[in-house]
Amino acid sequence: MRQKLYSVIIAGGRGTRFWPLSRSRKPKQLLKLFGPKTLLDETADRVLSLGGSDRTLIVTVAEQLNAVRKELSALPRKNFLAEPEGKNTAPCIGLAALEVIGRDPDAVMIILPADHWVSDVPAFRRTLKAAAELAARHDRLVTIGIQPAYPETGYGYIVKGKPVADAETDAYHVKKFKEKPNAKMAAQLLRQGSLWNAGIFAWKASTLLALMERYQPAIHKSLEKIADAAGGKSLATPTPKLGSVIAREYKKMPSISIDHAILEPAGSEGRVLTVPGQFGWSDVGSWAAVHQMSPRDADGNAATGNWLGIDTKECLIHAPDRLVVLLGMRDAFIVDTPDALLVGDLKRSQEVRDLVDELNKRGQRSYTIDESTSRR
Amino acid sequence: MRQKLYSVIIAGGRGTRFWPLSRSRKPKQLLKLFGPKTLLDETADRVLSLGGSDRTLIVTVAEQLNAVRKELSALPRKNFLAEPEGKNTAPCIGLAALEVIGRDPDAVMIILPADHWVSDVPAFRRTLKAAAELAARHDRLVTIGIQPAYPETGYGYIVKGKPVADAETDAYHVKKFKEKPNAKMAAQLLRQGSLWNAGIFAWKASTLLALMERYQPAIHKSLEKIADAAGGKSLATPTPKLGSVIAREYKKMPSISIDHAILEPAGSEGRVLTVPGQFGWSDVGSWAAVHQMSPRDADGNAATGNWLGIDTKECLIHAPDRLVVLLGMRDAFIVDTPDALLVGDLKRSQEVRDLVDELNKRGQRSYTIDESTSRR
Repeated sequence: MRQKLYSVIIAGGRGTRFWPLSRSRKPKQLLKLFGPKTLLDETADRVLSLGGSDRTLIVTVAEQLNAVRKELSALPRKNFLAEPEGKNTAPCIGLAALEVIGRDPDAVMIILPADHWVSDVPAFRRTLKAAAELAARHDRLVTIGIQPAYPETGYGYIVKGKPVADAETDAYHVKKFKEKPNAKMAAQLLRQGSLWNAGIFAWKASTLLALMERYQPAIHKSLEKIADAAGGKSLATPTPKLGSVIAREYKKMPSISIDHAILEPAGSEGRVLTVPGQFGWSDVGSWAAVHQMSPRDADGNAATGNWLGIDTKECLIHAPDRLVVLLGMRDAFIVDTPDALLVGDLKRSQEVRDLVDELNKRGQRSYTIDESTSRR
Repeated sequence: MRQKLYSVIIAGGRGTRFWPLSRSRKPKQLLKLFGPKTLLDETADRVLSLGGSDRTLIVTVAEQLNAVRKELSALPRKNFLAEPEGKNTAPCIGLAALEVIGRDPDAVMIILPADHWVSDVPAFRRTLKAAAELAARHDRLVTIGIQPAYPETGYGYIVKGKPVADAETDAYHVKKFKEKPNAKMAAQLLRQGSLWNAGIFAWKASTLLALMERYQPAIHKSLEKIADAAGGKSLATPTPKLGSVIAREYKKMPSISIDHAILEPAGSEGRVLTVPGQFGWSDVGSWAAVHQMSPRDADGNAATGNWLGIDTKECLIHAPDRLVVLLGMRDAFIVDTPDALLVGDLKRSQEVRDLVDELNKRGQRSYTIDESTSRR
């Protein structure tokens, strides 16, 4: 590929699904859910060989910038972009596209969330490279489509159209996107050969910005103002003046996902392709997903820390500090932190998010912000 | 009653059933399971009015003496007897009988475990007084028999014989004692009107010592040697010489319960009476019993501490220090301590004792000794 390849890691998530381990100041991508490294670090490791450290960019929000930089200290400081506030993924990816196009007008960018899990990293890299080649050659938006393992109702689906002619890889036109389906619809989508939308994309920065102008003129206008203020300089470590322009334009931009803003309208106009990927993937949406993706013992328990289980099966135990003993437990998750403990039914771990809302409502906000500040 | 009434509280239990709250150096009677007071303190409160603080004695083991004294600082120091080692209840009650008879040859003593739960304290006191009167008048061993609430297989039973003639209270001759029955036998015992043996007794010290000589001559001989060495002085705060005699005789005495040693043989010779009691009683044998005896909210949860339950029912939560959040839990118990956490199925809380053995086997003894020493 003649075009240079940039990896753009989106690291702006909030910390609600993995409470009490995650807090608003310690979001999911900064957690060590599967081993000694944070999800962010694991994500960076996976893509570092694609473009090298110079072309691995991170977009995060201002309040997480220091923590994210510290976590990825091997990357140059100029590779960290900070959004003044979170506005979902469309403005975020637009900002990254500005940075990439400023560095190389022909560059292809790969977009990846910072907090996913992948088991087969070589297959993952091969799929990303194939998607990037396809995006460059066809000047299209390319989404990675995950071969579904089961009819998940929590994911969006990509409905495949015809195979892409003269593609060097297995690739399809996208017929349409289907948001989180009900169970019946999910089963039907599986039978049709539809794919999970993993939020992993590849496209030329120029393609994206052109389609931003077409489908999201307001965002595009704000991005142009930011580009003008930058005057060809990097958006990382901006001058105070550039910083204030970015802040002002961010206030104006709508909060909208790249899927709604660009991919769906572009899909209905035949501008989106998909490359199926089979590399063992999860968006790690709940403690149940962590349990599923972790190595488990003969009883189906996945555990970190000092623990003892008596007739305890299919549990997730996160206990880095204290001894945890379980007696006759089934399908439970136990997450132990210095100031708060969560014990729940693993099948209901999706509800952790609501539980954090409930804690905030009940004036227990100190437990949802940050471990270091809430410890009494 | 002309005889003076002594209450003797037996406070020598070990700490295994309520791990991780109880430790070998912090046994059940020193736990606050139902409120701001320890079980020992609650027990002393219940009987203090019977004989006054001068005639409320505590028997404990040497290693718990300081903790027990500190807990009951309102009692005079001379009311605490320390066994050099635990030898079950027969030697313990024998020692207490020596002390009581030394103070008053005619005295009646009431024996009570330090770690029980009672709901109706006035009824409890009335029953004890009636038992003491009966013991004095008939010169018999009197046991309190609890009206069973259900066919419990974990308790011993008292099989009633004929009513006691010319008794001023509801009282029966004891036909025999029945140790922990199986479920079928327990149901049959209930139909027969048998009573739970609560380990609460009343008798004259002289009656007990005479029967000790009859049924347990070895223990009686040791007690006589201790009495000789005391020479009329109290056994509390003994001189070094007296202390060494007590230690020597304790080494010799068999480890045997008062039930096996005295009550069962005396029962078959018609020397035991029983007074039925209905005052809401439990020996608090497990976390499940704590749950059952505690005030519960509308969802059946009994909790201490800062906690939040989402669709959580019939749980016991002991969380004095940290926030505990439960999601979709049923019939579980959660016991949180600074260095160890136990989460289990409330229906299996009887197994906590085995679990402590397992921890000791696995080299986790630091977690079963004492909170203060095991905290890392």
